[in-house]
Amino acid sequence: MSIVQEKVKQAVEILNEKGIDCWLIFVRETSAGGDPVLPIIYGHDLTWQSVLIITRSGEKIIILGSLEAEAARAIAAYDTILTYDKAFQPLLLDTLKKLDPLQIAINYSENDVHADGLGLGLYQVLLKYLKGTEYQNRLISAESISGALRSRKTATEVTRIRAAVETTRQIFHHTFDYMQIGMTERQIADFMHSQLTDYGVTASWDIANCPAVNTGPDSPVGHVGPTELRIAPGHLVHFDFGVKQHGYCSDIQRMVYFLATGETNPPEPVQKGFNTVVYAIQEAVAAMKPGRLGKEIDAIARGIVVNAGYPEYLYGTGHHLGRTVHDGAGMLGPEWEKYGETPNYPLEAGHVYTVEPGLFVPGHGYVGLEEDVLVTDEGAVFLGEPQTKLIVK
Amino acid sequence: MSIVQEKVKQAVEILNEKGIDCWLIFVRETSAGGDPVLPIIYGHDLTWQSVLIITRSGEKIIILGSLEAEAARAIAAYDTILTYDKAFQPLLLDTLKKLDPLQIAINYSENDVHADGLGLGLYQVLLKYLKGTEYQNRLISAESISGALRSRKTATEVTRIRAAVETTRQIFHHTFDYMQIGMTERQIADFMHSQLTDYGVTASWDIANCPAVNTGPDSPVGHVGPTELRIAPGHLVHFDFGVKQHGYCSDIQRMVYFLATGETNPPEPVQKGFNTVVYAIQEAVAAMKPGRLGKEIDAIARGIVVNAGYPEYLYGTGHHLGRTVHDGAGMLGPEWEKYGETPNYPLEAGHVYTVEPGLFVPGHGYVGLEEDVLVTDEGAVFLGEPQTKLIVK
Repeated sequence: MSIVQEKVKQAVEILNEKGIDCWLIFVRETSAGGDPVLPIIYGHDLTWQSVLIITRSGEKIIILGSLEAEAARAIAAYDTILTYDKAFQPLLLDTLKKLDPLQIAINYSENDVHADGLGLGLYQVLLKYLKGTEYQNRLISAESISGALRSRKTATEVTRIRAAVETTRQIFHHTFDYMQIGMTERQIADFMHSQLTDYGVTASWDIANCPAVNTGPDSPVGHVGPTELRIAPGHLVHFDFGVKQHGYCSDIQRMVYFLATGETNPPEPVQKGFNTVVYAIQEAVAAMKPGRLGKEIDAIARGIVVNAGYPEYLYGTGHHLGRTVHDGAGMLGPEWEKYGETPNYPLEAGHVYTVEPGLFVPGHGYVGLEEDVLVTDEGAVFLGEPQTKLIVK
Repeated sequence: MSIVQEKVKQAVEILNEKGIDCWLIFVRETSAGGDPVLPIIYGHDLTWQSVLIITRSGEKIIILGSLEAEAARAIAAYDTILTYDKAFQPLLLDTLKKLDPLQIAINYSENDVHADGLGLGLYQVLLKYLKGTEYQNRLISAESISGALRSRKTATEVTRIRAAVETTRQIFHHTFDYMQIGMTERQIADFMHSQLTDYGVTASWDIANCPAVNTGPDSPVGHVGPTELRIAPGHLVHFDFGVKQHGYCSDIQRMVYFLATGETNPPEPVQKGFNTVVYAIQEAVAAMKPGRLGKEIDAIARGIVVNAGYPEYLYGTGHHLGRTVHDGAGMLGPEWEKYGETPNYPLEAGHVYTVEPGLFVPGHGYVGLEEDVLVTDEGAVFLGEPQTKLIVK
């Protein structure tokens, strides 16, 4: 069974669980952007106005331009394939009439960008098509459906993420061997990009800042590309990097320290900062069980950093990981305005999260680690070996 | 000047031309999909809720998460960079208050997918932020702005498309040398994919059907991937292929004929079909002057095909080409429901279109050619040498 077939089947189960009759995904010209749900439940682009309909009773219907019918058949996830050449509306209304769903879930969401695939203009087109029918009043948000579908990874999906994490480990390994005092951040990033090519994978996010490489206290930390700053003795080097492999992402942060002249160990403040981050990750991951809320996990890691005397980090402790590097609904984060309702979602078995607390060590720079973990019924497991010792060169 | 800088400057000119005070682009987590306008006017992903504001009087303002401020500065296209860590709304309202625009154009459009980047859910978030202010009643569609911005290529953009067209020509050239009787469509597509790697470019659209390769009368034509059908004597082979190079696309169709035993020339019906398509393209391109409507150009090509005795093709004669393979606002198409208002847009200097009529020759299959052309003040020019002779092997 392909992942698309797995996920379409899972969508029917979720519709039953949520008590929603029908999920309607309305798209057009998806090569120009498209609905984030489409790769999961279809796997290809669609050109003309197209609708995918999945129902609680298990119907799987697609209405699309005739030129794309063969591609839809090849995917073998939809039982009914209806095609048109000129006019789309009659097929849509006829299909809804036959199904007569009490709720029609469509892809919009204030909280979850992955569930907000319906453009405002395309929504207005849909309203015109439904005008004068009873269906225009049955539209609801599909965020609970697509959130669950995207967040609950199937076994095949977990296998793919684990493989991406392993490739990331290997590239880090080669990079740590390669890097030397005097090299620029840019040089190290170029090496890692060549590794991406060698492994036949792509960067998990915008190649301009994947990897992020920060050497020493003066390197600007954040979503910014590597600079011409050079590694010097006494520098902490921070990496944020991930690969996309067979459609699934990893997202890992690692720390390396270059000894200053005369040093045999990293300075005590550096080691303390590193240990604090490791401890924050371990305690957070130990608490990650189904039913716990994202904000509770966030508070554990955040509390450890703050109680150790560091300023609070200004981002969430973790996010879902999957087809995109910031995936799924919900997050491990605090209740800040910009996060909306997402910190209040409960963890479920099958969720994959990053855990990435961080802190600043004055005079040395940013210390952050990031691990990728899977929530199971028995608790969370790391999808690769976590970094627990500061790499010293 | 970078393309992003060129395009932001061009946006100010367009705001003046259209008499609109302010263009507000509201995005979040663009790695999950994002607004199709963002690559043109920013060029990187944005993670937290972010707003880009361009005004008629030339202000260029960005409000974004503090972690991304360095990246925004590096782009050097925005004069004012405002950052936040927790709350976005105060900065937004404060900025609007200072500007006090009479119209605030936002990205939604019923007709143009590239101008419909604001998700319905994110729009609802924006309405909440603006609630109780006078700005909630000043929102209008930005489709005329982004349509013009995307459609009117700068000199640098035309240079890039021309380069993509030239690379496509070279790959076709190698492919025509390589292909032989007995090879499958799949094999030929694999060869073309290896050429993409060799040239360091990517496919213009979904790699699963870029190239489309159709050999003989039984190959399914449309947006479908190459099959295991083999080239046989007497086969027409149809290609639809394009490359994306330095962010800009080509989109070209080509035809090859394999002589049957005893043949010295293609059969008369094949040659007639090919000549009809060439003639339809030439007449359409000759008519492509600023001010003509897309539907008028479509009618010329369509009329030549129909008058020659072939059934009407069930798609538009051409589309804009640029950052995406279906780019820009408007098209060269008939007034069919699914195309909305797009066939009524006038051509302008700087527009780049495909021209791609086609027809079926009974017993032989699909005959279609596609050329990429630039509209100038003096008329349209081909961006590469058009195919005017059927390639015979």
